[in-house]
Amino acid sequence: MATVEASSHAPTPLLKDELDIVIPTIRNLDFLEMWRPFFEPYHLIIVQDGDPSKTINVPDGFDYELYNRNDINRILGPKASCISFKDSACRCFGYMVSKKKYIFTIDDDCFVAKDPSGKLINALEQHIKNILSPSTPHFFNTLYDPYRDGADFVRGYPFSLREGVKTAVSHGLWLNIPDYDAPTQLVKPLERNTRYVDAVLTIPKGTLFPMCGMNLAFDRELIGPAMYFGLMGDGQPIGRYDDMWAGWCTKVICDHLGLGVKTGLPYIWHSKASNPFVNLKKEYKGIFWQEEIIPFFQSAVLPKDCTSVQKCYLELSKQVKEKLSQVDPYFDKLADAMVTWIEAWDELNPDGANSAKLPNGNA
Amino acid sequence: MATVEASSHAPTPLLKDELDIVIPTIRNLDFLEMWRPFFEPYHLIIVQDGDPSKTINVPDGFDYELYNRNDINRILGPKASCISFKDSACRCFGYMVSKKKYIFTIDDDCFVAKDPSGKLINALEQHIKNILSPSTPHFFNTLYDPYRDGADFVRGYPFSLREGVKTAVSHGLWLNIPDYDAPTQLVKPLERNTRYVDAVLTIPKGTLFPMCGMNLAFDRELIGPAMYFGLMGDGQPIGRYDDMWAGWCTKVICDHLGLGVKTGLPYIWHSKASNPFVNLKKEYKGIFWQEEIIPFFQSAVLPKDCTSVQKCYLELSKQVKEKLSQVDPYFDKLADAMVTWIEAWDELNPDGANSAKLPNGNA
Repeated sequence: MATVEASSHAPTPLLKDELDIVIPTIRNLDFLEMWRPFFEPYHLIIVQDGDPSKTINVPDGFDYELYNRNDINRILGPKASCISFKDSACRCFGYMVSKKKYIFTIDDDCFVAKDPSGKLINALEQHIKNILSPSTPHFFNTLYDPYRDGADFVRGYPFSLREGVKTAVSHGLWLNIPDYDAPTQLVKPLERNTRYVDAVLTIPKGTLFPMCGMNLAFDRELIGPAMYFGLMGDGQPIGRYDDMWAGWCTKVICDHLGLGVKTGLPYIWHSKASNPFVNLKKEYKGIFWQEEIIPFFQSAVLPKDCTSVQKCYLELSKQVKEKLSQVDPYFDKLADAMVTWIEAWDELNPDGANSAKLPNGNA
Repeated sequence: MATVEASSHAPTPLLKDELDIVIPTIRNLDFLEMWRPFFEPYHLIIVQDGDPSKTINVPDGFDYELYNRNDINRILGPKASCISFKDSACRCFGYMVSKKKYIFTIDDDCFVAKDPSGKLINALEQHIKNILSPSTPHFFNTLYDPYRDGADFVRGYPFSLREGVKTAVSHGLWLNIPDYDAPTQLVKPLERNTRYVDAVLTIPKGTLFPMCGMNLAFDRELIGPAMYFGLMGDGQPIGRYDDMWAGWCTKVICDHLGLGVKTGLPYIWHSKASNPFVNLKKEYKGIFWQEEIIPFFQSAVLPKDCTSVQKCYLELSKQVKEKLSQVDPYFDKLADAMVTWIEAWDELNPDGANSAKLPNGNA
């Protein structure tokens, strides 16, 4: 298996010209300084989530493009309605305007973590390893990632499944402040994640997971159009479910298309807990709604003729309209926005199903 | 949630009078000496796998009962045919004669491992923790076991699923010699597992895994009758699939009955690789067959009226006869042995569905 050999024994390729880093606003410039040695080789796409009149001063040495709300409105016209305002969900606009094969997205309160030996963790390098080696969604390997050095498939793992499938998503984790909901934050204000679990694993086919957008990489060509972060923030009844929504849609579509989703390494250092009272206000409808949304996604079936991410996503939007609108009229609006998102994606990426080689309309 | 509180903050109960340790033969008495501080509080059931005329000298201080082939024949009569001879698969006889709620089974080439801080790992204590805290098979928690100290359910995890389900199985792992099949052993004779992954996780509903019998604990009352290790060794065309068979049947039945299966910690130190040439001879039919067995188990559906482990297991035996006999006549014989196993289990455990309080017929 060439892929395995490559991922195990060769140095991890940088993918310098094939990966964009998407950041939803930068409130703290220390963030970029800390990541400088790791991020400088890459192109950054910064999507400013709030007031467009405020200026973000990106330090010298970084190659970047910056979009604020005015840019989004200009580029997408009426279709800009599908991009959230005053919410980090706006980051998905960056996925749409990128012309690269891979995306890494990270929040500006996430710093470089250390492994148990004290070494700084190159999160991007680990994401690239995860994405370039296959996933194994059809059978569980008890020694975790079988493609890693020093590991393999254990006894009883069918040989026909050892080639794995292409990896679409690499979901990284967080040391220090764990990604808890507001009720858990309120109940356990002092809890910190100090445990470094040295593992990457494939989330099995048919299993949903809570995808966090803090530290996330994906193959834009394979799954990009499913990475819509929904309608959150300004004018919306809900927040903090942007990445969750993207994760549910993405996992259902990956399962349908035979693509893999990994979680585990790399860790970043999540520096700051957001305000649990503010979070509760944003989340409380989501906490009710997820009790119906998750069974909906668990039972969602995509027809065989959904052979592209776009087709899958449009089909999902139909099912959302049909079934989740009963939960709240918000889902009717969200289903429409899902369609608008795909239209906007295809407009900005006209060359081929998912990937596009045309120059960026802006910057 | 009382269970969670108990598992997180109270010392782990010893379950001294509720757990038996089942060992298939002891070829190396150092094994017992090394485990003495951990095993002495418990009752051991040793099932001698080979020549009954050979004597196993158990050192002083251990509370044990020992069964050889003659004992098995005497106790089970003609039903002894379902218990393998000259193969460690015979260990399942120990599960049947135990009168305890929990079983821990371990191979005699497995020693006490050390955690990364150099501390000896009390494997049994970790298994007890795993078994006494719930499992979460219906949704994946990215921070692994949510019931562990310092961990919880992450944002986006439905609150209705946070109570979890009862844990039936705790599957532990191996440092040093990994549990590889013969082809992998031959290709990577020097590979050692040196990575201590500090995690326990629930294997999601609908996902099968390769269950290794080297370091395994389970709740005998919840799942005991599914832990049949099949027909292996003397007179059989196959070996080294005893635990795999039990694992496939167990997982399908746990999924059907709403029970949980965990894997991860604790580690033991697996001291010695078995001979890969001998293993290849035992395994080679299994390597073909598993390509058909696994899809069979992946698509197996148990009817709603299968409300006990025994009913589920008998139903599975029917499906094995119907569908796997086409693969090889061996499965016809195995399906019959599955029925015999349940008959023998119920004979030795007449008091209630799975659990029995009658005195052991031997020892």
